[in-house]
Amino acid sequence: MLLRGRPRALGAGALLLLLIGFFLFGGYPEYGLRGATVLDGGPPAGLNHSACAPQPPLPPKCELLHVAIVCAGHNSSREAVTLVKSLLFYRKNPLHLHLVTDAVARNILETLFRTWMVPAVVVSFYDAEKLKPLISWIPNKHYSGLYGLMKLVLPGVLPPSLAQAIILDTDVTFASDIAELWAFFAHFSGVILLRLDRLRQAGWEQMWKRTAKRELLALPATSLADQDIFNAVIKEHPDLVQPLPCVWNVQLSEHTLAERCYLEAADLKVIHWNSPKKLRVKNKHAAFFRNLYLTFLGYDGKLLRRDLIGCPSQLPPGAEQLQQALAQLDEEDPCFEFRRQQLTVHRVHITFLPHQPLPPHPHDVTLVAQLSMDRLQMLEALCRHWPGPMSLALYLTDAEAQQFLRFVEASPVLSARQNVAYHVVYREGALYPVNQLRNVALAQALTPYVFLSDIDFLPAYSLYDYLRVSIEQLGLGGGRKTALVVPAFETLHYRFSFPSSKAELLALLDAGSLYTFRYHEWPRGHAPTDYARWREAQKPYQVQWAADYEPYVVVARDCPRYDSRFVGFGWNKVAHIVELDAQGYEFLVLPEAFAIHLPHAPSLDISRFRSSFTYRDCLQTLKEEFHQDLSRRYGAAALKYLTALQQPRGPA
Amino acid sequence: MLLRGRPRALGAGALLLLLIGFFLFGGYPEYGLRGATVLDGGPPAGLNHSACAPQPPLPPKCELLHVAIVCAGHNSSREAVTLVKSLLFYRKNPLHLHLVTDAVARNILETLFRTWMVPAVVVSFYDAEKLKPLISWIPNKHYSGLYGLMKLVLPGVLPPSLAQAIILDTDVTFASDIAELWAFFAHFSGVILLRLDRLRQAGWEQMWKRTAKRELLALPATSLADQDIFNAVIKEHPDLVQPLPCVWNVQLSEHTLAERCYLEAADLKVIHWNSPKKLRVKNKHAAFFRNLYLTFLGYDGKLLRRDLIGCPSQLPPGAEQLQQALAQLDEEDPCFEFRRQQLTVHRVHITFLPHQPLPPHPHDVTLVAQLSMDRLQMLEALCRHWPGPMSLALYLTDAEAQQFLRFVEASPVLSARQNVAYHVVYREGALYPVNQLRNVALAQALTPYVFLSDIDFLPAYSLYDYLRVSIEQLGLGGGRKTALVVPAFETLHYRFSFPSSKAELLALLDAGSLYTFRYHEWPRGHAPTDYARWREAQKPYQVQWAADYEPYVVVARDCPRYDSRFVGFGWNKVAHIVELDAQGYEFLVLPEAFAIHLPHAPSLDISRFRSSFTYRDCLQTLKEEFHQDLSRRYGAAALKYLTALQQPRGPA
Repeated sequence: MLLRGRPRALGAGALLLLLIGFFLFGGYPEYGLRGATVLDGGPPAGLNHSACAPQPPLPPKCELLHVAIVCAGHNSSREAVTLVKSLLFYRKNPLHLHLVTDAVARNILETLFRTWMVPAVVVSFYDAEKLKPLISWIPNKHYSGLYGLMKLVLPGVLPPSLAQAIILDTDVTFASDIAELWAFFAHFSGVILLRLDRLRQAGWEQMWKRTAKRELLALPATSLADQDIFNAVIKEHPDLVQPLPCVWNVQLSEHTLAERCYLEAADLKVIHWNSPKKLRVKNKHAAFFRNLYLTFLGYDGKLLRRDLIGCPSQLPPGAEQLQQALAQLDEEDPCFEFRRQQLTVHRVHITFLPHQPLPPHPHDVTLVAQLSMDRLQMLEALCRHWPGPMSLALYLTDAEAQQFLRFVEASPVLSARQNVAYHVVYREGALYPVNQLRNVALAQALTPYVFLSDIDFLPAYSLYDYLRVSIEQLGLGGGRKTALVVPAFETLHYRFSFPSSKAELLALLDAGSLYTFRYHEWPRGHAPTDYARWREAQKPYQVQWAADYEPYVVVARDCPRYDSRFVGFGWNKVAHIVELDAQGYEFLVLPEAFAIHLPHAPSLDISRFRSSFTYRDCLQTLKEEFHQDLSRRYGAAALKYLTALQQPRGPA
Repeated sequence: MLLRGRPRALGAGALLLLLIGFFLFGGYPEYGLRGATVLDGGPPAGLNHSACAPQPPLPPKCELLHVAIVCAGHNSSREAVTLVKSLLFYRKNPLHLHLVTDAVARNILETLFRTWMVPAVVVSFYDAEKLKPLISWIPNKHYSGLYGLMKLVLPGVLPPSLAQAIILDTDVTFASDIAELWAFFAHFSGVILLRLDRLRQAGWEQMWKRTAKRELLALPATSLADQDIFNAVIKEHPDLVQPLPCVWNVQLSEHTLAERCYLEAADLKVIHWNSPKKLRVKNKHAAFFRNLYLTFLGYDGKLLRRDLIGCPSQLPPGAEQLQQALAQLDEEDPCFEFRRQQLTVHRVHITFLPHQPLPPHPHDVTLVAQLSMDRLQMLEALCRHWPGPMSLALYLTDAEAQQFLRFVEASPVLSARQNVAYHVVYREGALYPVNQLRNVALAQALTPYVFLSDIDFLPAYSLYDYLRVSIEQLGLGGGRKTALVVPAFETLHYRFSFPSSKAELLALLDAGSLYTFRYHEWPRGHAPTDYARWREAQKPYQVQWAADYEPYVVVARDCPRYDSRFVGFGWNKVAHIVELDAQGYEFLVLPEAFAIHLPHAPSLDISRFRSSFTYRDCLQTLKEEFHQDLSRRYGAAALKYLTALQQPRGPA
């Protein structure tokens, strides 16, 4: 889909934004839910309980439909995604989404839509910040209330070339094709269109402002919600309203009108809800509502990444190159699966949960790691060991992302943390894209330094403070390329008392309760750290790169990215350390730093690797290609890596 | 839904089974896929490429629609479930499913539909075995080919009162409401109806048999598929055919006609495919096909468990009592979540994968256990340690069930095993229903004896043989109530060399590499096994029950079931052992038997338990209720359990 600041011109049509979104999706004010004073207890006459009008003819095949959504903050962004999934599931037309967002939602949704790559979807963003002055004079209890009020000014904000748009709240789920709703635009008679036109000339803006100001005078209210204003304007100008069949805004309630609607209808078109309160409402039709919502909550969004049937292809940016690259892969190549996995563009939902980090300190450091569902139980311990900011990439299905959400909500330790950012990377393909995940987490770190760790490691309790002090004392920054090495240990016992100091750690090491990391299977990985020297070290000491070195390091955020060709579980960190060395990073081991790897059953993803011969063969090929790339980029300086590679060695 | 051998009478209408299913879902023979010789390379004239006829009016709201499906074997049963999910997702009418099944499919689907509890769905089963003689004279290469041919005799098999039915292959996915298809029945003109009626009087049976026999004479074919016969009959009687718009049987191919169909249409109604070959077809519309199929493959079936909008409630058997029981729960009760979980009816798909056990031996024993996704990696090791039959309950989401399927297919060890039955119990609710899972696995064991184990235990390599010999030598059976105790050990090291004998095990125990199970946290659980005595024992010895005893035992299959009130992770096995003791089982410890628990990170489900105070409080309440039940059932004999409960103790 195309991401633009301003949408394409749509022809010379006059502004004719029918406020159908309002009629549809705000017909019954949410008593008490929006913290609003309600002007009129009953719904406006003629609203939402019209006899079921026949479905007007659908718009022409492949006609572009416009949808506007106001969305701010982390939670609202998640809601918007579920709404959009339901839209995409049933739609058969190209869509243009007009998203009015704050900076948080824009950051999230821009990344998401860019990586979602849905054909025949164009997305435009509008800065909600700029709209605030237009409505901030209206007293409002909630920060979010301000965003609700933005619906009032949409006619003036959306491009003048836009003739019509459907405005949707984020707490709406579609149960049918939005084209059926769009069809009602054609249904508006010429008379009504004319009146709207006159109205536009007379000025909608004046109209709602006048009404709002009068209501404010007449009421003892301390706040006024968008819904109240809409209701009041309509009361005054009932001819503005085109009633729609009730099936287009079904709400779950004990309300007679809603009840009558779903008794008479066979087919509900749009469900308006998703507040947690309503999910628990006891109502014999609750299951229909809940299940439709849950359907799209857990729906695998990648399945919506498909061309429209019978419409000209409208590929999003990058999709064509991607298809070409995929088409060029040789299916007979033993590395086919690896290359395909590497090319896969995973949907990414950054800051999936609310995240309010402190302003970054100049020596601050973010712990960067990635995980999948089977490591969720590490998070609490990690939070106890690392009070600082974290940027974590989670490789999940859409359904797992919801489980993850509930997991965090149920954990006092996790939900208390404001400085842990969780970035969901949606699963796709058979191989674990470990380096793509690391790159997502790394790109989202907001501090000047990052600790590139792994989820199975618990840092020393003091590590966060110690790293910040060390960074400051060592005078890092200012172009000095340094990687601080955090020595790695492991315990093979799954009941384990974590050492509170280096002295305690050394005692455990001597007692055989701890080992240096991968001491038994792969000592080369950490040998250059020189654990013997570390035992005695009082100050940081420099070590030299050697083949297969893969220490856990602290570096500046602008460090090289991980090489995404390494998917699955081999050589992914080694290649990154080679890259650091090639770029001239010095490796300094910190004398008081340590982290300990906890034991765990091998993950399913790693089991697959270990049992596959193809995997090992292919890894060798990928390594060689990596070294060829190194030579191209670093010339003769890269020779040492190739030489090291060709020396006899143990298992990779 | 109602399960019946014979469907309800539908009025006095004459048999008028329109073979729409055939026109729809077999229009293009699957060249090469069905192992059939094809009579006519091209599709019959007028088939599948008619101009898109307008959609006839939908049937009356709440009209019952009839669907017939022939289904045999494990794999076909899985396919049928995906088809039914797509049907249910879009349907708005009550459905009557007529399932022609072999014993395997009936067993699977009867259990599934009974536990699925979908309102407004009636299921009738027809024994495919009885239809075989009607068609077995037709030469056939495949066992499955015989089931294809059964579509020919459906008119005579379905109840005479049934006026019309849609016949579906299992490799079909709906992309729309089946009522739109049903509507075409009304579209058949009176003339065609008349002709069909005349045809019925003349005898459809004679017609297809005559054709089939003639084709057999004329062709050098060694087999004849149902599709070939249908094609030949139609060629002879083109007036039998009512062409349907192509969108009702879209197939993924490079075929011009199919291509033209999805270029002209905006909306595909039925997708016909699901062979793995086609999933890989490269075609620009492949994504639509694949994604629709994958949607329902992983769709959470419990979301389809909802009443129809605007139709009289048609609850399946047990649903009303269940709703009442749920309504009577007190939401303020601290055990509310536990009681609700206990009442939950989980969908159960028994023998999810092909399973061909040997005929049971009189002393044979099945290993019974349960697991969720995070323990899949135990299965290979378990298979290496236990060559005998296993009955395993897996607690999975629908999407995870597909991952599990791929996991088994990718494992040579697992896919080679014919005697491991996997029963999928679909996830629902927040608490792990450990005892319900055990009961599912126990109920499906086919041997006279069962080893009630846990998934984290690896049995001694010799255990399977040793148990069978012991059962025989001890003369178990014949009403003697005996539980053979398999002593349990554990390792805390996650790299571990499994002892090949009792002597080796004892050496590891002495070296501190192994412990008796839960030695550190909860020695009471296994203390009565008397490990000191076991060290020296040369023959089985009897031990007495004591409070909190929870050994792993081998018992006759007709042993008491687990108490399903214990959900989550507390006291679930203890209660079962109490029940055995109360029923007079003697506990005999086997001197050469052992199993070793492997370490693992705590599962998410158990983490939730450990961090919850409510959980522990509630567990106490459940225990007390359990003992009250014991007193009611066993009177004074149950006093000892209550006394034991009231004694001071460590953590439960």
